Amino acid sequence: MLLAISAFAQESDSVLLRKMSNQIMLEGKCYEDLRVLTKTIGHRLSGSAQADKAVTWGEQALKEAGADRVWLQPVDVPLWVRGKENLKVQLKGKQFVDIPMLSLGNTQGTDNKVLERQILCVRSLEEFEQLTTEEVRDKIVFFNYALRQDFISTFQGYGDAVKYRWVAVNKASEKQAAAVIIRSVSTGADDAPHTGASRYNDGVKPIPALAIGNISAEKLYAACQGGAVKAQLQSNCKMMGTKRSYNVIGELTGSTKPNEIIIAGGHLDSWDVGEGAHDDGAGCVQAIEVLRTFKALGIRPNRTVRVVLFMNEENGVKGGNAYADSALKHREQHIFAMESDAGGFVPRGVGLEMPATLKDKVKSWAPLFSPYGVYDFEQEEGGVDIGPLKKQGVPLAGLLPDPQRYFDLHHSSNDVFETVSHRELKIGAWTMAAMVYMVDKHF
Amino acid sequence: MLLAISAFAQESDSVLLRKMSNQIMLEGKCYEDLRVLTKTIGHRLSGSAQADKAVTWGEQALKEAGADRVWLQPVDVPLWVRGKENLKVQLKGKQFVDIPMLSLGNTQGTDNKVLERQILCVRSLEEFEQLTTEEVRDKIVFFNYALRQDFISTFQGYGDAVKYRWVAVNKASEKQAAAVIIRSVSTGADDAPHTGASRYNDGVKPIPALAIGNISAEKLYAACQGGAVKAQLQSNCKMMGTKRSYNVIGELTGSTKPNEIIIAGGHLDSWDVGEGAHDDGAGCVQAIEVLRTFKALGIRPNRTVRVVLFMNEENGVKGGNAYADSALKHREQHIFAMESDAGGFVPRGVGLEMPATLKDKVKSWAPLFSPYGVYDFEQEEGGVDIGPLKKQGVPLAGLLPDPQRYFDLHHSSNDVFETVSHRELKIGAWTMAAMVYMVDKHF
Repeated sequence: MLLAISAFAQESDSVLLRKMSNQIMLEGKCYEDLRVLTKTIGHRLSGSAQADKAVTWGEQALKEAGADRVWLQPVDVPLWVRGKENLKVQLKGKQFVDIPMLSLGNTQGTDNKVLERQILCVRSLEEFEQLTTEEVRDKIVFFNYALRQDFISTFQGYGDAVKYRWVAVNKASEKQAAAVIIRSVSTGADDAPHTGASRYNDGVKPIPALAIGNISAEKLYAACQGGAVKAQLQSNCKMMGTKRSYNVIGELTGSTKPNEIIIAGGHLDSWDVGEGAHDDGAGCVQAIEVLRTFKALGIRPNRTVRVVLFMNEENGVKGGNAYADSALKHREQHIFAMESDAGGFVPRGVGLEMPATLKDKVKSWAPLFSPYGVYDFEQEEGGVDIGPLKKQGVPLAGLLPDPQRYFDLHHSSNDVFETVSHRELKIGAWTMAAMVYMVDKHF
Repeated sequence: MLLAISAFAQESDSVLLRKMSNQIMLEGKCYEDLRVLTKTIGHRLSGSAQADKAVTWGEQALKEAGADRVWLQPVDVPLWVRGKENLKVQLKGKQFVDIPMLSLGNTQGTDNKVLERQILCVRSLEEFEQLTTEEVRDKIVFFNYALRQDFISTFQGYGDAVKYRWVAVNKASEKQAAAVIIRSVSTGADDAPHTGASRYNDGVKPIPALAIGNISAEKLYAACQGGAVKAQLQSNCKMMGTKRSYNVIGELTGSTKPNEIIIAGGHLDSWDVGEGAHDDGAGCVQAIEVLRTFKALGIRPNRTVRVVLFMNEENGVKGGNAYADSALKHREQHIFAMESDAGGFVPRGVGLEMPATLKDKVKSWAPLFSPYGVYDFEQEEGGVDIGPLKKQGVPLAGLLPDPQRYFDLHHSSNDVFETVSHRELKIGAWTMAAMVYMVDKHF
């Protein structure tokens, strides 16, 4: 008898989830929303004029999607500006050759002076640890550590290599290096440099730090093997205090339990190159699509479904922290938060960061998701912006798109609308909508 | 005890499969092979000068991969040539506007004459069936049937819509239409026309038949709703008999059972637009990678591993038939044949067209494939070129890449190298190599 009821419930859910899929695949707006965001606004680093425009865009998009209520949540974000920058290196002989480069986010440049120094090439932090301060002092240290392409999970490769963005800068400064060059944390077969946040530890002298592409890295390392190589670095990036910005929030009020909140989110800011299409325009338009789909199908959720477009994921997570602080202050009850921030690629699963009993409940829905190619519920992944809610015991989930192409474009000029597939983006949006629907009904 | 042995065998296989993966991900040549094929030769319709060049390229690539033996197998292929062509339509008012178009493969053009006729717009074959010959006679019939985007499997959508390429042309001719326009069998969000094979049934008068893109199709249908619309078609395509071409074959001779053959294959020909990168340059370079990987790792297979680059999949399957005929004539014993011909996208599974006992054996290997994202062994799919071997009882398998992007570019000018991900292509090559290795060891 119980089995029969359960089978009926699943059948009814499967019919509803199919309606959601048809609605999104045939009438979905997320691809067009992404086109507008990327092509009329473009990249949108926290604090920039484009980020302001993106806030206005998000407000409008949520209203058009049919939100009952849309509002802005104030967030003070760091204002980091890049300015002009260039790197010249003696790749062959004495001549200085321009190499494509990007300063790492939050770092300090040369204040427009030309910093000319000898390059010290190392393969890894382990190799660097063997060097004395005398050997490092006043040189530009180049860490030629490649993202490991042998890992099938590119996120594993990223996790392994990203320490060069965070740790290597500080280690080099501690040994009195003049500046740091890292090989981009990138799977790219091209030479695009990839930026991303860094941070000077307390007490560490801020030195310039930048990334070069995979091809330039190989060339530079080869040049270093042939003898002494100098670089000329000129850059202007700097922190300019903080600026008022906003998380953009819209919701459908729950019918029976309006005080219980379910979040679908992404982050509105991006790096200041490319168009922030996959990172994370995709997550924003997918979250908006969730709300639009409920509205278009006339589904009034029991709980309040809230879309949050977080500000400042890339270089501070001020939006994620502000949201969690506000939730705590206002004693809001969040029963579930899901984020899409791993690219608008075809989904393979949903990461779950929650107690085992809830995980088991979600996993019991697997047969409803497998017809859509969504089968992996084994990863423990939420999202950076919803992460601060974990301390409040909120069950977290993260969309898991296929990861093979993400780090070809992540944080680089390659992250543009043209690399997004309309069908992949939409199936990701469906996955979020389906999870929100199931959680609303069964949690 | 049996369990222990089985666990050990799987562990040992998993180590070897990891070595293959590392070899391909770090040292693989398939992406570079594909660059050369697409960028120095380009598209390569059967019978074309480029197809001849591709044969030479394939021979050389197989030798470089380390084949013990490389040879060409003669195949007589149809020689269809497109020539210049254009379509003008009265989209708004009386003015004729150029619309991007491609004649369907194997069809006959207007012999360079301008064919000006009224367009008869229908949504579907069902709607067309209601019309009398009088209503159809001497008109250009436009079938505005869209590939169904609500199907999550694009191959399901393709299978549903592709009858407009095969059936609609003949149905229209039977009712004395002057020509046929179909909406491209395409998921594309752009206006690229997609070609593909058609065929006149015996006794049916050959009339011109062509495809237009999704956006033009919507415009043309809207124009038809507004009143009578004329088209001017001028085209030169025609069949010009047959031409001698070749399947390109290379093999590693088996150590203990050299007379038992395992095939890894793709097809060398493509349509005469774009670069045939996904369809099916990808399959060719992946199959070559299988052989190269065995050789690079010093793995001598028990059975003979044979790479076959088939000619003429697109408009005749003459290569697939010639291969099967030769196998029968020479009493070759094929124990397994696998083809990659669904794009160089990230793999999700392997289709199996074989007896249940063999299927169960392959499915028991699933834990070895799941770390690579390859989990779906439930589809019954082999491949068009290896299909003719089925009559000889050969177990068939087909690589199943993720299908979301394939029909955005299939048979169109969009099918170029830049749309291929190096990591996705390589993981597909690994999947083939792993299957060949497991079959060689355990079948």
